[in-house]
Amino acid sequence: MSCNSFGSLFRVTTWGESHGPAIGCVVDGCPPLIPLSEKLIQPWLDLRRPGQSSFTTTRNEPDQVKILSGVFEGKTTGTPISLLIENTNQRSKDYSNIAQSYRPGHADITYDLKYGIRDYRGGGRSSARETAMRVAAGAIARLILGNSIFIRGALIQIGDKKINRDRWSWDEVKKNEFFCPDAQMVEIWRNELSIIRKAGSSIGAVIEVVAEGVPAGLGAPIYGKLDADIAQAMMSINAVKAVEIGEGFAAATLRGEENADPIYLENGKLSFASNHAGGILGGISSGQPIVVRFAVKPTSSILVPQPSINSEGESVEVITKGRHDPCVGIRAVPVGEAMLACVLADHWLRHRGQIGKFGEIIHK
Amino acid sequence: MSCNSFGSLFRVTTWGESHGPAIGCVVDGCPPLIPLSEKLIQPWLDLRRPGQSSFTTTRNEPDQVKILSGVFEGKTTGTPISLLIENTNQRSKDYSNIAQSYRPGHADITYDLKYGIRDYRGGGRSSARETAMRVAAGAIARLILGNSIFIRGALIQIGDKKINRDRWSWDEVKKNEFFCPDAQMVEIWRNELSIIRKAGSSIGAVIEVVAEGVPAGLGAPIYGKLDADIAQAMMSINAVKAVEIGEGFAAATLRGEENADPIYLENGKLSFASNHAGGILGGISSGQPIVVRFAVKPTSSILVPQPSINSEGESVEVITKGRHDPCVGIRAVPVGEAMLACVLADHWLRHRGQIGKFGEIIHK
Amino acid sequence: MSCNSFGSLFRVTTWGESHGPAIGCVVDGCPPLIPLSEKLIQPWLDLRRPGQSSFTTTRNEPDQVKILSGVFEGKTTGTPISLLIENTNQRSKDYSNIAQSYRPGHADITYDLKYGIRDYRGGGRSSARETAMRVAAGAIARLILGNSIFIRGALIQIGDKKINRDRWSWDEVKKNEFFCPDAQMVEIWRNELSIIRKAGSSIGAVIEVVAEGVPAGLGAPIYGKLDADIAQAMMSINAVKAVEIGEGFAAATLRGEENADPIYLENGKLSFASNHAGGILGGISSGQPIVVRFAVKPTSSILVPQPSINSEGESVEVITKGRHDPCVGIRAVPVGEAMLACVLADHWLRHRGQIGKFGEIIHK
Amino acid sequence: MSCNSFGSLFRVTTWGESHGPAIGCVVDGCPPLIPLSEKLIQPWLDLRRPGQSSFTTTRNEPDQVKILSGVFEGKTTGTPISLLIENTNQRSKDYSNIAQSYRPGHADITYDLKYGIRDYRGGGRSSARETAMRVAAGAIARLILGNSIFIRGALIQIGDKKINRDRWSWDEVKKNEFFCPDAQMVEIWRNELSIIRKAGSSIGAVIEVVAEGVPAGLGAPIYGKLDADIAQAMMSINAVKAVEIGEGFAAATLRGEENADPIYLENGKLSFASNHAGGILGGISSGQPIVVRFAVKPTSSILVPQPSINSEGESVEVITKGRHDPCVGIRAVPVGEAMLACVLADHWLRHRGQIGKFGEIIHK
Repeated sequence: MSCNSFGSLFRVTTWGESHGPAIGCVVDGCPPLIPLSEKLIQPWLDLRRPGQSSFTTTRNEPDQVKILSGVFEGKTTGTPISLLIENTNQRSKDYSNIAQSYRPGHADITYDLKYGIRDYRGGGRSSARETAMRVAAGAIARLILGNSIFIRGALIQIGDKKINRDRWSWDEVKKNEFFCPDAQMVEIWRNELSIIRKAGSSIGAVIEVVAEGVPAGLGAPIYGKLDADIAQAMMSINAVKAVEIGEGFAAATLRGEENADPIYLENGKLSFASNHAGGILGGISSGQPIVVRFAVKPTSSILVPQPSINSEGESVEVITKGRHDPCVGIRAVPVGEAMLACVLADHWLRHRGQIGKFGEIIHK
Repeated sequence: MSCNSFGSLFRVTTWGESHGPAIGCVVDGCPPLIPLSEKLIQPWLDLRRPGQSSFTTTRNEPDQVKILSGVFEGKTTGTPISLLIENTNQRSKDYSNIAQSYRPGHADITYDLKYGIRDYRGGGRSSARETAMRVAAGAIARLILGNSIFIRGALIQIGDKKINRDRWSWDEVKKNEFFCPDAQMVEIWRNELSIIRKAGSSIGAVIEVVAEGVPAGLGAPIYGKLDADIAQAMMSINAVKAVEIGEGFAAATLRGEENADPIYLENGKLSFASNHAGGILGGISSGQPIVVRFAVKPTSSILVPQPSINSEGESVEVITKGRHDPCVGIRAVPVGEAMLACVLADHWLRHRGQIGKFGEIIHK
Repeated sequence: MSCNSFGSLFRVTTWGESHGPAIGCVVDGCPPLIPLSEKLIQPWLDLRRPGQSSFTTTRNEPDQVKILSGVFEGKTTGTPISLLIENTNQRSKDYSNIAQSYRPGHADITYDLKYGIRDYRGGGRSSARETAMRVAAGAIARLILGNSIFIRGALIQIGDKKINRDRWSWDEVKKNEFFCPDAQMVEIWRNELSIIRKAGSSIGAVIEVVAEGVPAGLGAPIYGKLDADIAQAMMSINAVKAVEIGEGFAAATLRGEENADPIYLENGKLSFASNHAGGILGGISSGQPIVVRFAVKPTSSILVPQPSINSEGESVEVITKGRHDPCVGIRAVPVGEAMLACVLADHWLRHRGQIGKFGEIIHK
Repeated sequence: MSCNSFGSLFRVTTWGESHGPAIGCVVDGCPPLIPLSEKLIQPWLDLRRPGQSSFTTTRNEPDQVKILSGVFEGKTTGTPISLLIENTNQRSKDYSNIAQSYRPGHADITYDLKYGIRDYRGGGRSSARETAMRVAAGAIARLILGNSIFIRGALIQIGDKKINRDRWSWDEVKKNEFFCPDAQMVEIWRNELSIIRKAGSSIGAVIEVVAEGVPAGLGAPIYGKLDADIAQAMMSINAVKAVEIGEGFAAATLRGEENADPIYLENGKLSFASNHAGGILGGISSGQPIVVRFAVKPTSSILVPQPSINSEGESVEVITKGRHDPCVGIRAVPVGEAMLACVLADHWLRHRGQIGKFGEIIHK
């Protein structure tokens, strides 16, 4: 069976295929009386939109979102919000040559193994086009979280080229086509990706997403831990193969006293001397920034010939001629942000109204 | 709110605190007519049981599991299976000194921030003692999956000491106290951990879990992807900070043609020339071994003094005197196996009866 | 919060308001390879469609359904099916007079109490227009259940005029505008309803829905019992105030030996001498026909003046001038059928592959 | 598959068979800091306890509940509460004669059809003994709801003997063994039930449960409507065949102006001139008392011989010799109250923190 919804109280259901008439989602559980219009969603979609540089797919979709329900006189009503984006720039014939073949590294073969049928046009349901609706839902999640919670992301590695964290600038992120926080890395990536694109190949990447201003207390132990839900959300994004929180894999190399974040009060406010934990302890937010990183594999749709089989079981060489991103990591930045926003909105709605003891003490 | 259940059709609900009268779980959704007794669960618990070497906590719990329901005349009946383990070796007074303080790196403070109350004895609900019930549930999951699916794990890194994969031996895993697959690494780890233990400190680790024989087709795209559910399951284990599938973070450094796993038929059986994907494509199992790695941070309960505050907001130094694992990664191996078994059993029950097109072709 | 999905493995999410641009639903969990097109859904919608007699609302909606996803080359793909119906015949100005008033018996006031905002046009989300999507989803549910399961319903009571069960004819149900199985009752109802309609009033009704050919074993005790899920499904239909299975309330008056259905084998087939149970024992289907009845209250939107208040808390008289059904029970017949189909499809998917002991014996 | 949990944010999972070592439940989602001990649960269990009059089963269980987790120093901690009752007075040999036979009207045959195995001792999982845990969970639900919400129930009909509502006295309910609100009916029922009991037969009944003080706004349209969730909860109780809210089936006979409840303000407080709706409009509570009725069928375990078959498919006569209630409706009263408490607690937790517009206006 399939499962196309995520979240509990803030619940998003997406639908649609890459080359169908439209894609869409239903956002259920948005509180009432929040000002909402297409104008508040569209800018986030524009960040993810294809065709904005030579390093993302040349499929040129305006990705204009329409709100079909749940809003009355400019405000949410508490009823489900239906969002729809029409597909306008499909070129399905690009895919006729892979209709009967399986692209290595792609979901072609597993969809066929599971369902016995697949919409081969542009990857059908397995296409990253679905992530547009995550971004749209994330825009609504941000409105629920309000201005005090601030979520942003950056691309921190392409191939083996990692940014220098000492040069991190959030301003720089907005200035280049890579969401890169390190100005000196931009040109290096440009050169690298040009070579890869011209070779008809692709490359992996690492994204970091940070949420600041998250109140302490979000997360539902033991099996709705905030970090576990974030891990699931990120791993559900196309091409993601790894997720880490705070120190992540590096925590394996640390000793207890190195990894623990000392606690103190500063002007009556709970503070930590470091953030190895990435803002989550025991599955519950601590009030520190939540820091998440995830890795995406290289796009599997490439021009480089790949040994494979067709649906008759015969050996074939597969070349994927469609329009693809040489590095899906770039457009994964707004998607990662959106997923974090959705998880936080869900836990925020679950947590609402609950006040912990320590909260009272530090407000004395 | 809390959330103490995981899984959909195979649904496990755990309960209990470290120093309460007992811990337990309810396993709902187990199919009927499966032979089940305490004897089939106990061996897995014994693998996780504390007090088996100088490198795990000296709390000596027999961890004898009792089945209270769901089994009749030696077979499951399809009704919920209630499992219970009595706590027998609590030493709650160990914790009186931290009753009013917050251990840095520990869930003490976030539980208090969320709930306004915490059972400080041994970490209460946030204790890794809860993972005993995951192992018990995992034993039932294995029985559902049957003999054709084979799940096992190993410890592959302690601190910065990584095993050499060329020396990997599953037989070796059973022979040493670390679940270490590299015979030459065992002594090195022994020395390393002895030093850390004597220093009253702790260290992180990396675990790898592998499932062989998993049929193709498990996983429920888009938001019940097999890898996403595995990521959530692993990240929900105490102290886990990172999860990866197949190449994981290394996929970021690869090019498309390096990362794709070429497909071919061998004797009519679907085969892949490599397994960078870790057995999952598009969130659906491909029939290859599923390969998962996760990192645990160092135990935060250490004898090394840590700067912190108490519940009055005063600065204190925290030393945790209880009995703790210098490396929780060791006992996390059977827990990681159990979580993978539970996720697979859940998806197996969801998938049952579904047959894909390609399955038919390759069985011609 | 709101909750606009129902079902577990066959999961339907509806959205849309009476006077918004469209209504729709997402059907998630439909198995792949089922032939599906608009033509297979539309006939069921036409049965529920308004404006077909003088006894249903004169709002004349063509209710043309569009499939936006989940179908490829005429077959379902296992991915979510998005259905959409455009609203074309709204007359929102009808509602300007009740925009600030609360219709007694209507959800106006409770939506405002809960959400602090309401789309007053035609009842907004609380409108029975939403049930069109239930019928559309039910059409897909029927395709999953296949031809061996046969679901049909009838109107058996309007006001205090009950049909005579001895004259029950399923053929007659198709012939009259009431879905009435008793030919002699049709004219009586016609007269009765004409009087009520002319008086600007409305009247309640009782519907009976029957599913034949349901295999034994559907239902998930204890809290996913088939009868409990049916009760929830029916009670969720607009205006429904009561649900009963088999003997229902009449069971209260029976003695044990009167109510029990004697069991026997007929040609190796499990049989029952009667069906007081309505096809469900212990929450599990027995293989007998499932018999459900539910009552709908009279439409609360009437021309008869009602004492009420407005949103300022002032006393007002409310007259509802929109186009309404004098008896919503008529159009509730296809809706009740659809809900039963959806519940059965959900349990059918959960049950698939399970075989009970007795099933084997009787097939010897 | 089975499904042994109910509720969303207030989630109860029950387990255990009639003649196993124990029965129990896990209550997940209870907020922290609520005073809780066995003493606060036990009185409610005592009301349901068997063996209290000649009109309930003579199985004499003390039904002493134990709290195994989730409470620390007398208060809930927000973690799961595990409750356990040991079975002490099983007489399994009573059931040896029906081990291979199917009692007509009982879940014996459907459990076997579904699961291929059944614990025949006392009905196993299908026994009404499970309802003890509903009552225990309901006691915790009442504590969450607090003193301002008041839930109580009464038996209003046994066989065809209905109480006179004009003589309704809640005080009387506490005085007789039937929870009967009509003092004049008590002796009639006593005589009636004595005859039925001596005849080895049984009889059905109708229960009414009322919740007063429920705030407006509870309920999650469209598919988590308060009345739909109540219907599911009640129908999930053993032997229940019908549920109605407010006027229920009688609403079918009313005209719009008769059924609508006129709205007015009294001292700034929202008021209704009548309560045909039973406190729920559009699936949302209105602030009026919630009124629910449900019918239970006669106990199917009777001494009167019943034609049936055995597990070999041979015709047999079944006489059930165990200890049974001649009218399960009596003990269903505290169970119905508990289920209503659980549903309300669940919706209360979902609703917390939400404030509607009208609430503000009437508090001006």
